[in-house]
Amino acid sequence: MRVLGIDPGLQTTGFGVVDVEGPRLHYVASGTIKTKAADQGDLPTRLKILYEGIREVVERYQPTVASVEIVFVNVNPQSTLLLGQARGAALAALVSCDLSVHEYTALQMKKAITGHGLARKEQIQAMVARLLQLPGEPGKDAADALGLAICHAHAATSFAAVAKAGGTLRRRTHAQLKGGRSY
Amino acid sequence: MRVLGIDPGLQTTGFGVVDVEGPRLHYVASGTIKTKAADQGDLPTRLKILYEGIREVVERYQPTVASVEIVFVNVNPQSTLLLGQARGAALAALVSCDLSVHEYTALQMKKAITGHGLARKEQIQAMVARLLQLPGEPGKDAADALGLAICHAHAATSFAAVAKAGGTLRRRTHAQLKGGRSY
Repeated sequence: MRVLGIDPGLQTTGFGVVDVEGPRLHYVASGTIKTKAADQGDLPTRLKILYEGIREVVERYQPTVASVEIVFVNVNPQSTLLLGQARGAALAALVSCDLSVHEYTALQMKKAITGHGLARKEQIQAMVARLLQLPGEPGKDAADALGLAICHAHAATSFAAVAKAGGTLRRRTHAQLKGGRSY
Repeated sequence: MRVLGIDPGLQTTGFGVVDVEGPRLHYVASGTIKTKAADQGDLPTRLKILYEGIREVVERYQPTVASVEIVFVNVNPQSTLLLGQARGAALAALVSCDLSVHEYTALQMKKAITGHGLARKEQIQAMVARLLQLPGEPGKDAADALGLAICHAHAATSFAAVAKAGGTLRRRTHAQLKGGRSY
């Protein structure tokens, strides 16, 4: 399984690609897709950069599944609206490549990486570097994206273990295990 | 010029296609793309239906430009987030077809169609039917989308008229004329 983690944002979207072989994780790639308001025009143009950037990442690394952060309401409603639109464009890019998309909150990702949900950005960066045996720490957005990929790797592995143990898993149970969210 | 108007929404997205020949408007097509929460699964799946639906409309009717409603913050922040994601997926679909996208508020659209910004849905439906010489009134979402297409037709025509009159138009002036919005 090759997981593409996406931490969506209008200005900066982090991506991280991780190979999962049983309990082992291998780093493949990570980085950011940036759109700057000042020089990259209006919202449709910025969303186009984001959409095409994600499609390029998918094309280059050929992930088998995607793991995307669930975004939350901001104190500033206008920011909520912009972040929502960025996430919508990111999801459109992923589903247009026929990837199945799993969704996790930042809290679930932090718990999966550090064992608790209140981890600071620096702790995520350090733990992601350790888990993937990286020579240096990834940037904050890339680290979050790699964290999301690892979070899905853990959830998928637990699910497989439960299934192997002979549990009769219904969709509801699966959603609970993987921390999925329904609308 | 063939304008595709889009009134984005997660449950129902209206679309309307109008041909513009100078001051004349010709109806081409209109309808809705629907995703129902109950039977069409999680958010990525619903956004996929919306994304693919819009791409299908573009492929079938080959518009030259798109006109999309600017959405606003809802009283319910969670609804704002969902609407934002729907709009982001809709914009991604349009820019992925290399369409240039113009944005108008509901107020601007209503003014363009009825002459005032407080028009009710039924007035929009009646006026759109009259302007496009339709045998019957379109549905509410389709009427809004057709209204957006007409709104852009008016804005583009005014712009062309000013340009013809010899005005030196800078980008800023254009944005004011067409009621564009920058981020």
